[in-house]
Amino acid sequence: MAKEEGITVKKSENFSEWYTQVIQKAELADIRYNVKGFLVHKPWATKMIKLMNSIIEKELEERGHQPFFFPSVIPESFLKKEKEHAEFSAEVFWITEAGEEHKKLEEKLALRPTSETVIYSMFSLWIRSWRDLPMKTYQTCQVWRYESYTRPFIRGREFYWIEAHNAFATKEEAEKQVEEDMKITRKTLYEKFCIPFIFFKRPEHDKFKGAVNTFAADTIMPDGKVLQLPSTHFLGQNFSKAFDVKFVDKDKKEKYVWQTCYGPAAWRILAAVIAIHGDDKGLIIPPAIAPYQVVIVPIYYKKNEKEKVFKKAVELEKSLGVRSYADLREDYTPGWKFNYWELMGVPIRIEIGPKDLKKKQVVVVRRDEKKKEVVKEKDLKKKVEFLLKDIEDNLRKKADKFFSEYLSEAKNFEELRKILEEKGGLVKIEWCGNVECANEIKARTNGGTIRGTIFGKEEKAKGNCIFCGKKAKQVVYVAKQY
Amino acid sequence: MAKEEGITVKKSENFSEWYTQVIQKAELADIRYNVKGFLVHKPWATKMIKLMNSIIEKELEERGHQPFFFPSVIPESFLKKEKEHAEFSAEVFWITEAGEEHKKLEEKLALRPTSETVIYSMFSLWIRSWRDLPMKTYQTCQVWRYESYTRPFIRGREFYWIEAHNAFATKEEAEKQVEEDMKITRKTLYEKFCIPFIFFKRPEHDKFKGAVNTFAADTIMPDGKVLQLPSTHFLGQNFSKAFDVKFVDKDKKEKYVWQTCYGPAAWRILAAVIAIHGDDKGLIIPPAIAPYQVVIVPIYYKKNEKEKVFKKAVELEKSLGVRSYADLREDYTPGWKFNYWELMGVPIRIEIGPKDLKKKQVVVVRRDEKKKEVVKEKDLKKKVEFLLKDIEDNLRKKADKFFSEYLSEAKNFEELRKILEEKGGLVKIEWCGNVECANEIKARTNGGTIRGTIFGKEEKAKGNCIFCGKKAKQVVYVAKQY
Repeated sequence: MAKEEGITVKKSENFSEWYTQVIQKAELADIRYNVKGFLVHKPWATKMIKLMNSIIEKELEERGHQPFFFPSVIPESFLKKEKEHAEFSAEVFWITEAGEEHKKLEEKLALRPTSETVIYSMFSLWIRSWRDLPMKTYQTCQVWRYESYTRPFIRGREFYWIEAHNAFATKEEAEKQVEEDMKITRKTLYEKFCIPFIFFKRPEHDKFKGAVNTFAADTIMPDGKVLQLPSTHFLGQNFSKAFDVKFVDKDKKEKYVWQTCYGPAAWRILAAVIAIHGDDKGLIIPPAIAPYQVVIVPIYYKKNEKEKVFKKAVELEKSLGVRSYADLREDYTPGWKFNYWELMGVPIRIEIGPKDLKKKQVVVVRRDEKKKEVVKEKDLKKKVEFLLKDIEDNLRKKADKFFSEYLSEAKNFEELRKILEEKGGLVKIEWCGNVECANEIKARTNGGTIRGTIFGKEEKAKGNCIFCGKKAKQVVYVAKQY
Repeated sequence: MAKEEGITVKKSENFSEWYTQVIQKAELADIRYNVKGFLVHKPWATKMIKLMNSIIEKELEERGHQPFFFPSVIPESFLKKEKEHAEFSAEVFWITEAGEEHKKLEEKLALRPTSETVIYSMFSLWIRSWRDLPMKTYQTCQVWRYESYTRPFIRGREFYWIEAHNAFATKEEAEKQVEEDMKITRKTLYEKFCIPFIFFKRPEHDKFKGAVNTFAADTIMPDGKVLQLPSTHFLGQNFSKAFDVKFVDKDKKEKYVWQTCYGPAAWRILAAVIAIHGDDKGLIIPPAIAPYQVVIVPIYYKKNEKEKVFKKAVELEKSLGVRSYADLREDYTPGWKFNYWELMGVPIRIEIGPKDLKKKQVVVVRRDEKKKEVVKEKDLKKKVEFLLKDIEDNLRKKADKFFSEYLSEAKNFEELRKILEEKGGLVKIEWCGNVECANEIKARTNGGTIRGTIFGKEEKAKGNCIFCGKKAKQVVYVAKQY
């Protein structure tokens, strides 16, 4: 691989340019389609998104969520129904015409920016009795938002996610669902995709408009800014009252359901995976979502060796029991292939040459630490299995270390300002709880926002608000965000 | 299950009403969402569509197609570029505004009715040399068409499909791809989904506008009308010239690529599966796409028996190695469950009661023939495996028989008219090849269209055109269509 085909900047020196280059050079996406914010997803990213979705779907289904495909359009009148919670009305694309003559539609249709209004209008038809509850649904789909700032996998006018929407008979069950959503986030994002995060309860002024409470996982990107990952909303009875979702309970009384929704977006998780695990050579993909977990590169010097090493390479591809690919392309040298598959982030590379064949061994190289090892063929399958697990653990450990280095604490406003300016990350402060102070902090730190209190952790304020000096009510975390 | 919960009409007496009832009562879809032609897909249908797509995707990927996610919108100027082949311009939904203020977009965006223009505009950026060819892509997605007549899974304003788009260096390779597409159709539709069809080469006047030739699989529905299933288009160089998709060949000359596209729509295939396999009791789902392949119904009379049969039911659910579900609901009787799972079309039902427990046996009932069998527990796994295969074969055989009964031949126009009126199906005729005759045939048979010549079968015309009496040029098939 020629020099210019690899990444030409260091991730630590210019993260933004590094991110742009990885997306292009590791063939994840093409931004040249002629509509702003609409991304062409190439096979490598498409496969990662599909693997990610299937892992999350499995967790959802095991916990009783059922898959649906709901319509992608919303009549304008529906959106108006929940006007007071219309989070995305400023970001809606409107379908207004149809056909060659551009005939006006009777009613304008919004492309869904999210599906509360679609799904809850159906819930009102489906839910009659306590026997119909809980109703736990999800759909894997794309949504559209008219964003002004767009960046691949971080913010787009069209992006891919899963949205889960639920209805319960009681408040307690709905609250339990919020905890279950967090468990799913932990089991997938942290355990499989190796992305560390903190689950925050967002402050009042920053919650989803229709929600009683919003909870969201924040991770930290290599430039010190946080990226919001799956969020889960406790909706109370706000939507059930707007959409008339009622049921007759065991006590024969008619009641409004309690609701929650949860939105793990493969798109954003992929951004975090690229950014947090990658290095100066390119991607490093967690084994669970690597399109190929193992790539096999045959090496030969003479023509008569070729056939034998190719045969063995194909044999290994088929027998390892994991997603494997034998790279038999003849236009490229082994050295070029080594660099290429490092750029693409495949967890394990196996090299096999004529000498190895004779000795019934192969050379195994792990992507994360670039360690080489000679492994006997008979031990290879076990070794690969072990390494995939070990690479997963190692990526998680490295990411944890990186994450913890970006956690700090500020005793006064100047400290906060300085940390956010020089390093970023999440900064613990005490806060009076007033939105005016939050706004001032944001303005005077050039974008530092209050992410909220850590969910499930009792942290009592002891001193004064870092900004106004009045008695603090909450221990919260401040960060600049994507 | 109460009488009114099951299907209340006979399929043979009122197919249209039967189809509507099955879709509602077997919980496939809900048509009550407030936008015409936009369907809510419930879990049972969603799961079948996902299984179907994954089977087709596997066949595509094994033959070198790579998955993509392409943007869902097309700038108006792109559509105009291929104006002369703009098949769907009359059926496009237009996005014209965004945001709360309904701000006009700089350029109107079409929701994709199909993705030739999207994908080929990218091909023109990606393809440079013969080394980049063949380029074989696909995406699993939904498309939108402003149809006036809509029917669930048959014709919708939003529907689900896979579209494969390819570019080749030579005409021969492109032509071979058409054959490969047919192989995939056979391997999936016929072998797995048990749907018989004939692959026709459509007449000139009925091909996809941008295509040199259109080939399509037609199946026959229980009312004698044909339903078009996957079609594949040999595009020649029409689009590559419109979108400037060129490559430098081995001979250093710049050439336009040759293209094909293929569109297997899970939506329509599902319509055929519902209609062709179902019976008066409800759905019968081919094992390959059954969300549950086996359902286990525990039977008990006394409270102290319950625990034991439930335990065994769960044990079987986990140990059979196929998609199984133990129905442990206590609000319903075993009899109700038998009827329910027959309506839902699950291929195999296992009944287990206290006596069976003692004898280490179960009762096995197959959905297609409703035969009951007592099977020893130790033989059950093998039996289930055998039955799933046997049910698949049996459904295919029955469908073949049904299909062949709807094939006929007409020697003169009156015969044709009568067959189409009384029975329907595909009627073999000889035709002069003129579109005027085709139009007259359509008008005077109340909708009989010429489906084309059978692909890969030499059928030479020997007589005269069935309509005008001039010398016939082709042996073609006429049918009324959905």
